[in-house]
Amino acid sequence: MKMNAYVAGVGMTAFGKHADKTLKALAAQAIRAALEDAGIEAHAVQAAWMGNAAAGVVTGQEMIRGEVVLRGMGIGRIPVVNVENACASSSTALQQAAAMVTAGYHDVVLVCGYEKLFHEDKSRSLGAFLSAVDVEDPDGALNVVKRLAQLAGEPWEEAGPSSARSVFMDIYAMMARGHMKAYGSTPEDFARVVEKNAFHGSLNPRAQFRERLTVEQVLQARAIVAPLTLPMCSPIGDGAAAVVLVSERKARELGLRRAVKIAASVLATGWDSSAGEHDSVGGLAARQAYEAAGIGPEDLSCVELHDASAPSEIIACEYLGLCGRGEGAALLAGGHTRLGGRIPVNVSGGLLRKGHPVGATGCAQIVELTEQLRGHSGARQVEGARIALAHNGGGAIGTDAAATVVTLLERE
Amino acid sequence: MKMNAYVAGVGMTAFGKHADKTLKALAAQAIRAALEDAGIEAHAVQAAWMGNAAAGVVTGQEMIRGEVVLRGMGIGRIPVVNVENACASSSTALQQAAAMVTAGYHDVVLVCGYEKLFHEDKSRSLGAFLSAVDVEDPDGALNVVKRLAQLAGEPWEEAGPSSARSVFMDIYAMMARGHMKAYGSTPEDFARVVEKNAFHGSLNPRAQFRERLTVEQVLQARAIVAPLTLPMCSPIGDGAAAVVLVSERKARELGLRRAVKIAASVLATGWDSSAGEHDSVGGLAARQAYEAAGIGPEDLSCVELHDASAPSEIIACEYLGLCGRGEGAALLAGGHTRLGGRIPVNVSGGLLRKGHPVGATGCAQIVELTEQLRGHSGARQVEGARIALAHNGGGAIGTDAAATVVTLLERE
Repeated sequence: MKMNAYVAGVGMTAFGKHADKTLKALAAQAIRAALEDAGIEAHAVQAAWMGNAAAGVVTGQEMIRGEVVLRGMGIGRIPVVNVENACASSSTALQQAAAMVTAGYHDVVLVCGYEKLFHEDKSRSLGAFLSAVDVEDPDGALNVVKRLAQLAGEPWEEAGPSSARSVFMDIYAMMARGHMKAYGSTPEDFARVVEKNAFHGSLNPRAQFRERLTVEQVLQARAIVAPLTLPMCSPIGDGAAAVVLVSERKARELGLRRAVKIAASVLATGWDSSAGEHDSVGGLAARQAYEAAGIGPEDLSCVELHDASAPSEIIACEYLGLCGRGEGAALLAGGHTRLGGRIPVNVSGGLLRKGHPVGATGCAQIVELTEQLRGHSGARQVEGARIALAHNGGGAIGTDAAATVVTLLERE
Repeated sequence: MKMNAYVAGVGMTAFGKHADKTLKALAAQAIRAALEDAGIEAHAVQAAWMGNAAAGVVTGQEMIRGEVVLRGMGIGRIPVVNVENACASSSTALQQAAAMVTAGYHDVVLVCGYEKLFHEDKSRSLGAFLSAVDVEDPDGALNVVKRLAQLAGEPWEEAGPSSARSVFMDIYAMMARGHMKAYGSTPEDFARVVEKNAFHGSLNPRAQFRERLTVEQVLQARAIVAPLTLPMCSPIGDGAAAVVLVSERKARELGLRRAVKIAASVLATGWDSSAGEHDSVGGLAARQAYEAAGIGPEDLSCVELHDASAPSEIIACEYLGLCGRGEGAALLAGGHTRLGGRIPVNVSGGLLRKGHPVGATGCAQIVELTEQLRGHSGARQVEGARIALAHNGGGAIGTDAAATVVTLLERE
């Protein structure tokens, strides 16, 4: 959908383990920062979309997840919509909010993504991920892996899910094997993604991991499920991110200069991508977003994409159109997606290094890209950034993500 | 908000205990019925808003609650938004969907509310209700009761929550006591609500309870928390309801005659209503909806309102403007809210008798009212029904509902 909503303010917590902070406290911290950045008082917020994926399973807070946060901040009376879409929860919230602002329903709205995944009882943290597949199908998660294995021509037994890790890593491993077979990508290529994003993350004070890693270190790390090693998998984490969106009218009133605008945002649900990876829901959403905004991949200054695993980044670069099919590894190896390259990808460190508190990730991508387009990203600034793309996927259904949002941002 | 979205189709399951059906199967049944009623194929649906409140706690399905339902019905690729707002989950979904259709984003959308509350482990069913208050505040639910007790000038200890029942009945009991003190309403008045709605429910083949009850029987039933007896409390139940909304353009194309239109729908979150019950979020949402649609309470043919407890109906009649403050019991006693009366309320049987599968209730109200406005309600038809109001509240925060939606429907 073509959009016309302006980013007036952004804020986020550091990502990581926040044992001493409640879910509500994390969300409130991000919201306060976004309101302060926008120079807008809490009582001026006219509607809120709150994205959280797993509190029902992890903390037991369902039903009114957003209201309990906002109540404590003096925000009430207004429409509050609690939105859930697995790892794409808060980008779904953003897409909905931007559509409502574009339609003229509201002048000032709040979007927040927040998640607390760490729990003393680790089975709760892992259980959260199992709620992102069809729980009525006892083999639901396994079937996704099997189907991907079939597509890749790989024996699925090798990668059978283990209760000690998220089943999603089995899914990503099978996607990786399919890509390796089809295009000759290698574990070294996947390790190179981590090396790059670790370098980017080392420049981001809010990243969960700030140490740099060599390709060798990544390859020699603990094996999770072949070809994935531990640093090729996004970590469990806590955190929150918030965005204040305003109408064009309000942006003028606030006197926003070099304002960052949501130019398009597309939400799509997955299907069976056995017709080929370029038929994935990510590719579909990207094509629709490019068309709506009249922007092409060649116009992008930088991209934050859903690198829930290292191979995911290489595959996503392809279906987002940053390179041709099967050229993702070469794009990376040529340094083009590195800070300073032609089209830097995941300058924040990405999900792999910045962290991935599921429901918070979509908004955190918007925070990063807004700062980039404003030119406020310090050591990791992409020079002259003017147009950016955020890609956020979530859940598994068929052989695809259950939900994906692609958002295009543009600096005036 | 003023709306311009047409109800092309409605469908719902019977409400009650569906031990033999999964949550997905219930939702699919309602959706199929709504699509068939609309004469629209599944693949023509352009977006879906799915409302569920408690599956994270009851069945463990979070994150992609809607996608798993729709996938099984051949619906994919489109935007799917999973919406949660306690007992107002699917009216929130409807409000959002209607706003998007009104704005011209989609021509054909689906809204579904679905819930499975019965569980072999009864603590899960009751646990679901505890997720509708602030779980980070160990005294959250208790504090709501305390504050209401304070307002009513009643000792709160008497009504302390018990793990054997939903804390919401303690909340409703305190609201009832406040009303009794302020306006002289009596347990007989509350029993009269149940007698009326049981009569209405006896005419509804989809109602959870179809037996009629006398005022005496209600008063002599098992005490829950004074002044509430068991039939004054809405039951636990399973069920689903679905609505197909279309744009004006599509309504013309479908040749809808005497079409039912969503004229306004307002979502608001609660606050502290200690300024008086008429300052409740229900009253606020109703005033905004009346103003948006240019409709007044005097124009209404019938009303479905949130009688989660019997006193709730009397109090809601007042803040929705069906009568003056403190006149709710007299409106009822005069027979005005009974089928055949001036302004029939809860002709479906209401939450008390039709049942209250939390996330399904909002859509079920729209199903009932659409059938009424079409003149298809058989034995419980409100003659000449042309304009109707749906009121759906959910959760508890401060001394108010956490979320409330008021929707106005109009037959052309």
